[in-house]
Amino acid sequence: MGTTLGELAVRFGLELAGDPALEVSRVATLQSAGPGSLSFLANPRYRRHLAGTRATAVVLDPRSAGECPAAALVSTNPYAAFARIAQLLHPEPVAPAGIHASAVVDPGAAVASDASVGPQAVIEAGAQVGARAFVGPGCVVMRGARIGPDSRLVARVTLYPGVVLGSRCILHAGVVIGADGFGFAPDRDGYVKVPQVGGVRIGDDVDIGANTTIDRGAIEDTVIEDGVKLDNQVQVGHNVRIGAHTVVAGCVGISGSTVVGKRCMIGGAVGLAGHLELGDEVIVTGYSLVTRSLPGPGMYSSGMPAIPAADWRKTVARLRRLPSLERRLALLEGREPGIDTEIDTEEET
Amino acid sequence: MGTTLGELAVRFGLELAGDPALEVSRVATLQSAGPGSLSFLANPRYRRHLAGTRATAVVLDPRSAGECPAAALVSTNPYAAFARIAQLLHPEPVAPAGIHASAVVDPGAAVASDASVGPQAVIEAGAQVGARAFVGPGCVVMRGARIGPDSRLVARVTLYPGVVLGSRCILHAGVVIGADGFGFAPDRDGYVKVPQVGGVRIGDDVDIGANTTIDRGAIEDTVIEDGVKLDNQVQVGHNVRIGAHTVVAGCVGISGSTVVGKRCMIGGAVGLAGHLELGDEVIVTGYSLVTRSLPGPGMYSSGMPAIPAADWRKTVARLRRLPSLERRLALLEGREPGIDTEIDTEEET
Amino acid sequence: MGTTLGELAVRFGLELAGDPALEVSRVATLQSAGPGSLSFLANPRYRRHLAGTRATAVVLDPRSAGECPAAALVSTNPYAAFARIAQLLHPEPVAPAGIHASAVVDPGAAVASDASVGPQAVIEAGAQVGARAFVGPGCVVMRGARIGPDSRLVARVTLYPGVVLGSRCILHAGVVIGADGFGFAPDRDGYVKVPQVGGVRIGDDVDIGANTTIDRGAIEDTVIEDGVKLDNQVQVGHNVRIGAHTVVAGCVGISGSTVVGKRCMIGGAVGLAGHLELGDEVIVTGYSLVTRSLPGPGMYSSGMPAIPAADWRKTVARLRRLPSLERRLALLEGREPGIDTEIDTEEET
Repeated sequence: MGTTLGELAVRFGLELAGDPALEVSRVATLQSAGPGSLSFLANPRYRRHLAGTRATAVVLDPRSAGECPAAALVSTNPYAAFARIAQLLHPEPVAPAGIHASAVVDPGAAVASDASVGPQAVIEAGAQVGARAFVGPGCVVMRGARIGPDSRLVARVTLYPGVVLGSRCILHAGVVIGADGFGFAPDRDGYVKVPQVGGVRIGDDVDIGANTTIDRGAIEDTVIEDGVKLDNQVQVGHNVRIGAHTVVAGCVGISGSTVVGKRCMIGGAVGLAGHLELGDEVIVTGYSLVTRSLPGPGMYSSGMPAIPAADWRKTVARLRRLPSLERRLALLEGREPGIDTEIDTEEET
Repeated sequence: MGTTLGELAVRFGLELAGDPALEVSRVATLQSAGPGSLSFLANPRYRRHLAGTRATAVVLDPRSAGECPAAALVSTNPYAAFARIAQLLHPEPVAPAGIHASAVVDPGAAVASDASVGPQAVIEAGAQVGARAFVGPGCVVMRGARIGPDSRLVARVTLYPGVVLGSRCILHAGVVIGADGFGFAPDRDGYVKVPQVGGVRIGDDVDIGANTTIDRGAIEDTVIEDGVKLDNQVQVGHNVRIGAHTVVAGCVGISGSTVVGKRCMIGGAVGLAGHLELGDEVIVTGYSLVTRSLPGPGMYSSGMPAIPAADWRKTVARLRRLPSLERRLALLEGREPGIDTEIDTEEET
Repeated sequence: MGTTLGELAVRFGLELAGDPALEVSRVATLQSAGPGSLSFLANPRYRRHLAGTRATAVVLDPRSAGECPAAALVSTNPYAAFARIAQLLHPEPVAPAGIHASAVVDPGAAVASDASVGPQAVIEAGAQVGARAFVGPGCVVMRGARIGPDSRLVARVTLYPGVVLGSRCILHAGVVIGADGFGFAPDRDGYVKVPQVGGVRIGDDVDIGANTTIDRGAIEDTVIEDGVKLDNQVQVGHNVRIGAHTVVAGCVGISGSTVVGKRCMIGGAVGLAGHLELGDEVIVTGYSLVTRSLPGPGMYSSGMPAIPAADWRKTVARLRRLPSLERRLALLEGREPGIDTEIDTEEET
C-alpha cells in the first residue's frame, strides 16, 4: 500500500536525494518516525530533530537537504508539499453512494445518484445535494439549500433554508449555517424581531470548523468567498463578507455587516465590531478587539499578555492613576493641567 | 400576494404619503430595492441612499419623509414599524401539525394536537409540547421538559430534563438548555462532581441564537426572563438570572450566579465574572470584562482597540515601565517614591 | 426514600451533631431548605444564612458547627462531603440497557450488553461501547471510536473516528471530539489542507461541557488526562495536552500544541497561544491572554476590569500618550529621550 519516493517526486515536482524505489505508507513527526514513514521539516524550531530521525524520507527545503540522514524530497515550500503527499497517503474514506435507510429525504429534494446521505440525516424539499457530496449522520439540510459537488458535511451539520454551498467544502460537526441574524428593533415594550430574509452564500474549497455558526443576512446575503478557512467555534454575523483565502482562527466573533478582505489572517478569539472594513492581507493577532476599519496590508494588535497576577493588579491600579501622573508632570513643567481635556477629546476613540 | 400601502398604514398606524393602492410584496435595502419592494431608513448612515432608491415605498421618520422619492410610510420608530411589516410580508412557513413518522415520541409525553414534531426528533416521557409549538428535525426534548405555545425549536436543539420554556420563543440550531452547571468540589484526589439538581426557567418571547448554551442551576433554577434576546454562542452559567428585555450579543460568557438586570445591553464577547449584580439598563460595550457589580443605568467598558502591532508592542512595554515612570516623577517632585505601595493597596482591584 | 443522618455519617466518615434517626431526601440552599432537606455551608459569604435555615441537617466545617440551628454533619471539606451526599440523594436515572429500535448500530460495532444506546443514535463499524456506558439520543460515534465503561454521552455528542474515551466520563450535548485540527499550508493559490491523522485520547473521570470541541492531532494525538473538567464552549486545538485534574472554565480557547500542566485552573474566556508550556498548578484568571510559557505553581492575569465607559475612553487615550509622557519626563530630568527606543527593544514581548 506504500508509494515510492520516485512516484512522489514526479507527481509533486520535487527533487529527490535518495533511492526512488523506497516506499512510504504513512506520515510521522521527525521524532516518532520509523521505517516506511514520511516526515517533514518546515518550522526551524524542529531542525534539531532532523539528525536523529528514523524516517524513510523527509520533505524539506534546499537549505536543510544536506543535513538529512534519510532520503530527502526537496521543495521550496516543504509544508505544502508534505500536505499534498499526506492527502495521498491518508485519503478520506469514501462513503458508499446512496441514501441510508434511516435518512429522511423529501421526495422534492434532488440528491445526486453518486452522493452519499448518512443515517438519521434529514433533507427537506427543494434541497440539492451535488455529485459525490457527503451529507453525514444527523445532518439537517433545510428546504432549498444547495450543496455543491464533492462537499462534505461530516455530521450533525445544519443548513438553513436557501443556504448555498460551493464545491469541495468541508463542514465539521455542529456547524450551523443560516440561522437568523441578531436583528431586533427596540420598541416601547421590548424588542420586535426583524425577519432575516437574506441567505448565506459560501464559495468553493471553504473549510468550516466544529460548532462554528454563520448567520443568514437580514435582507441581502452573508458571503464567504472561495478558499476561506474558518476554525472551530467562530461566529459570523449577518451580512458579513469574508474575502477569498482568508483564514480565521478559533473563537473569533465577527459582528454584522463587517467586510474582511482577501488573504487576511485573523488570530484566535479576535472580536471584530460591526460595519467595519478590513483591507486585503490584514493580520490581526490573537485576542485583539477591532473597533475601526483597518487598511491592508498591515498587522494589528491589542491583546495584553498575562503576567504574574500581583504585578498585573498593580498595572491596573497604575493605569487608573495615569490622570494624576499627567497632572503632576504638567505642574512640574509649569503647564496648565487643564489642557488635557481637550487633547482627550481629539485622541479618544 | 402583495399588500397595499393603505392596508399597511391602517394596520400599523402609520401616516402614508403616497398612493394607498400601491402594493409591496417583499423587503429590500434602499440600494437594491425595485418595484414592489418596501425599504426603510432608520440609520442616518444610509440617508445618502434615499434619493436614488427605486423602492415602491419607504418606512422612515417624519424628518426624512420630505426627501423620499417614493411613497412614504411615516413612523417615529421606523425600524420597529419596518420589522412588523417584514413579518407580515415574510411569514415563517407553518409546519404541518403532527408528528413525523421518524420522530420518537414517548407515549408518556404530551404533544398538543396542533403542534409539529419534525423528523428524527426525540421527545421523552413526561415532556409537554404546547399548542402550535414546533420541535424541528433532530431536536431532543428530555423527560419532563415543557415547551410553551407557539415556541419554535428550529433544529437539533437539546432541552435537558425539566427545562421550562415559555410561549413564542425561538431556539436556533445547536442550542443546549439545561446541561449540568460547572460544579466540582476539590478534594485530595481531584474533584468530586456536585450534582446539578436545579432547572432552567425561560420566559415568553425569548430568542436564543445558534449553539448558545444555558446551564441548569446547582440547587435552584437558572432564570431567563421575558423578552430576553441571546445571540449565537452565548454561554450562561448555572444560577444566572437575566432580566426582562435584556439583549446579549454573540460569544458572551456569563459566569455562575450573576444577576443581570432588565433592559441591559451586553456587547459581543463580554465576560461577566460570577456572583455579580448588574442593575437595570446597564450597557457593557463589546469585549469588556466585568469583575465587579455595576449599578444601572450606566455604560461600562474595558475593550482595548487594536492598533498597528508595532505600536501595540511598545504600549505593552511602556505599561511595564509605569512603576519606574512613577518613581522618576516622585524623585523630580522631591517626594518619597515608596508611598506608591500604599496607594496601590487602596486602588487595586 | 430518605436516608438517615446516621447512615450518612457512617458512609462518608462525618461527625454528626444531632439525631441519627432524622431523614433527609433532597438538597437545598440554606435559605430555601425545609424539613427533609440537607444543606451545606462552605463559602463564608453565606454564613449569615445559617442561623435562619430550616434545613433538617447542614454539612459544614468544625468552626461553624457550633452555630448550626439544625443537625450538623461536620467535615473539614464540607463542599466535597455535600457533593458526595448529593450524588447519593439525587442519582442519575439509569437508562435501560439495550439499543433503541431507532438507533443505527453497524453490525461491526461492539456494544456491551449492559450498555444503553438511545433513540436516533448512530454507531459505526469498529466502534466499541463499554459496560454500562450510555450513548444518548442523537449521538454519532464514528468508526473505531471507543467509549470506556460507565461513560455517558448525554445527547447529540459526536466522536470522530478513532477517538478513545476512558471510564466514567460525562460528555454533554453538542460536544464534538476529534474534528480536524486547523492545519493548512499556505501556497501560491491559497491553502492546502494538511490531513489530520492523529487521534484524541481522553482519560478517566473527564467531564466535558456542552458544545465544547476538542480537535484530533495533526500527526500524533491530542491528550486529555484523567480527571480533567472542561466547562461549556471550550475549544481545544490539535496536539494540545491537558494534565490530570486541571479545570478549564467556559469559553476558553487553547491553541495547537500547547501543554497545560496538572491541577491547573484556567479561568473563563482565557486564550492560550500555541506551542506553549504551562507548569503544574498554574492559575490563569479569567479573560487573560497567555502568549508565553508559564512556570508553575503561580497565578497569572491580564484581564482588564470594566469601568465607566467615559473613564475608559480617557484611559485608552492616555495610553496612547505614554510615549510623549515619557519624553516630557526625560526632558525634565535632563535625560536624552531617545534612549527609550533601546529599552523598548529589550522589554517588548
